[in-house]
Amino acid sequence: MSAHHPTLEAVAAHAGVSRATVSRVVNGTPGVRAELRERVRRSVAALGYVPNSAARSLVTRRTGAVGVVIAEPEARVFADPFFAQQLRGIGRELAAHDTQLLLMLVERPGDDDRIGRYLAGGHVDGVLMFSLHNDEPLPALARSCGLPTVFGGRPGWPGAERETGLLYVDTDNRDGARQAAEHLLARGRRRIAVITGPLDQTAAQDRLAGYLDALGRTAPDPALLAHGDFTAEGGEAAMARLLESSPDLDAVFAGNDLMATGALRTLRRHGLRVPRDVAVAGYDDLEPAAWAEPALTTVRQDVQLMGRLMAELLLRRLTPAPEAGTAPPAPVITPAELVVRAST
Amino acid sequence: MSAHHPTLEAVAAHAGVSRATVSRVVNGTPGVRAELRERVRRSVAALGYVPNSAARSLVTRRTGAVGVVIAEPEARVFADPFFAQQLRGIGRELAAHDTQLLLMLVERPGDDDRIGRYLAGGHVDGVLMFSLHNDEPLPALARSCGLPTVFGGRPGWPGAERETGLLYVDTDNRDGARQAAEHLLARGRRRIAVITGPLDQTAAQDRLAGYLDALGRTAPDPALLAHGDFTAEGGEAAMARLLESSPDLDAVFAGNDLMATGALRTLRRHGLRVPRDVAVAGYDDLEPAAWAEPALTTVRQDVQLMGRLMAELLLRRLTPAPEAGTAPPAPVITPAELVVRAST
Repeated sequence: MSAHHPTLEAVAAHAGVSRATVSRVVNGTPGVRAELRERVRRSVAALGYVPNSAARSLVTRRTGAVGVVIAEPEARVFADPFFAQQLRGIGRELAAHDTQLLLMLVERPGDDDRIGRYLAGGHVDGVLMFSLHNDEPLPALARSCGLPTVFGGRPGWPGAERETGLLYVDTDNRDGARQAAEHLLARGRRRIAVITGPLDQTAAQDRLAGYLDALGRTAPDPALLAHGDFTAEGGEAAMARLLESSPDLDAVFAGNDLMATGALRTLRRHGLRVPRDVAVAGYDDLEPAAWAEPALTTVRQDVQLMGRLMAELLLRRLTPAPEAGTAPPAPVITPAELVVRAST
Repeated sequence: MSAHHPTLEAVAAHAGVSRATVSRVVNGTPGVRAELRERVRRSVAALGYVPNSAARSLVTRRTGAVGVVIAEPEARVFADPFFAQQLRGIGRELAAHDTQLLLMLVERPGDDDRIGRYLAGGHVDGVLMFSLHNDEPLPALARSCGLPTVFGGRPGWPGAERETGLLYVDTDNRDGARQAAEHLLARGRRRIAVITGPLDQTAAQDRLAGYLDALGRTAPDPALLAHGDFTAEGGEAAMARLLESSPDLDAVFAGNDLMATGALRTLRRHGLRVPRDVAVAGYDDLEPAAWAEPALTTVRQDVQLMGRLMAELLLRRLTPAPEAGTAPPAPVITPAELVVRAST
């Protein structure tokens, strides 16, 4: 270190405290009195001391931070209340354990590569990853870096179901979709179409499977199937295609609420009344469902709770010595619940 | 290092490349052929090599990451398209320079402290901070850590105007607000109310000052003044208070578009027609302005450009030796432009 980089010792002398105290304050170790902490901070500021993260990580082996990686463009992350709710749950749980959330979005080519390098660089203790498409390279990268990782949603890459120790939090998408489609059947609907999310995501796959369960089918009727992308615009376009292929449809189950609101727009444009002509059900029960006109029948998942559970699982993984008798961390599936409103 | 931590040398031998090549790939130094890079990555994964960020940062002194700190609750960050646009501009510019964006939100007590520790820990090269209230402790913290920092919006803490070297990107809020209020005067309005943003933010202060400029006043008429918080709900409540204190008002200038849409809701509920009874102007020209019913007259600021300029300024600050003849980085003020729509 050159002369203009003050040392830890210089800070200790300036603050009139021990070297160990400076080290603890700089490393964020709890248990230093507020008054001492403040004195050390003032000396750090006065001398322009830059803590050496290298030296620190050799001692604590912890950064006090967790990366949250979302493999979606920021336009979608910010437009879909799903992510805000998840992040709220995650942020609160991490904050309660004095752990910093670092949000990283994978959007452009090369982003994954750069994020992988940062994760591998020792700047975080663990990773939460979600909304992953199945061809996403990050999970493999995170595992090769040896970082504890918890996934949001059941991972769907080839062979994932046979990997041991894979941690994730999901909701029972298949059961939720089954409930929604059974509800449409119970309302007397017989030509029930489906708008799927991107089928390289397990949530979209599972919701399609639940719809098929209710209908007693193993494969969808192509004339009653349209693919969306979990956006309102995607739902709008998918609904238009369905009205072309099946003008006699009397219900539609959309894989999320945003696509359902898009479907409502198309139905309105075609002069069709909801639910009289066409019943519409969504999935998620976030703000767009209650705001929709008419309000949407949908499937509720507690997204904020799911975020909290993800953070909890990761923090448990980061604890080196679990108490005796404690079960090891395992995947969590939260229940899904049908919410009936005016659209069905 | 214990025996189960493979070394850089082991990775080089496994991949059949030089130690220098492994080092360059691991450190993200450009100029390694894609094929070699891929081979090194596979060996890193196969051996479970964990790069030593300590050792690396001693060589490069760079982490390749920039922290973006937003001092707003996530509910507001995600609900206001302003932040999504800013982050898009920032993210694209940083990505073009192979630099990782780490988003950190300051929401709960203690968050600032924890973020300060992380920033001080050597995990980022610089910081972008925005939407800061004037009592925010982070700017001082960032400066005491010696990290290059660029602010989004003109900093407003006491004495900020006399600090040299302070870097920020802002739009000409005062001129934009003046244009909006002059437009309302030109439309023949004489009882022009104002809904301010939080007056501990310079954007809100400057927009109020521009409104006063146009009206030729030095202080607002208390009966025509209501405070909001840059949310739609805040604008709704502020408009209701204004209708109580000045039932004869014929125009309102809201400090941002979200508050203006809230004002529209209140006016509609009171059976007042826009613009016939009350003309309404906003500020920002983001999605809510065009979607509003009627579409909002507003002031356009190029928010995505402002994000890009923030990242550019910071990257220039991080370049140790600027080219001869290059001016040092300085604050940037982007122009504001009135956009006239149906609401005035």
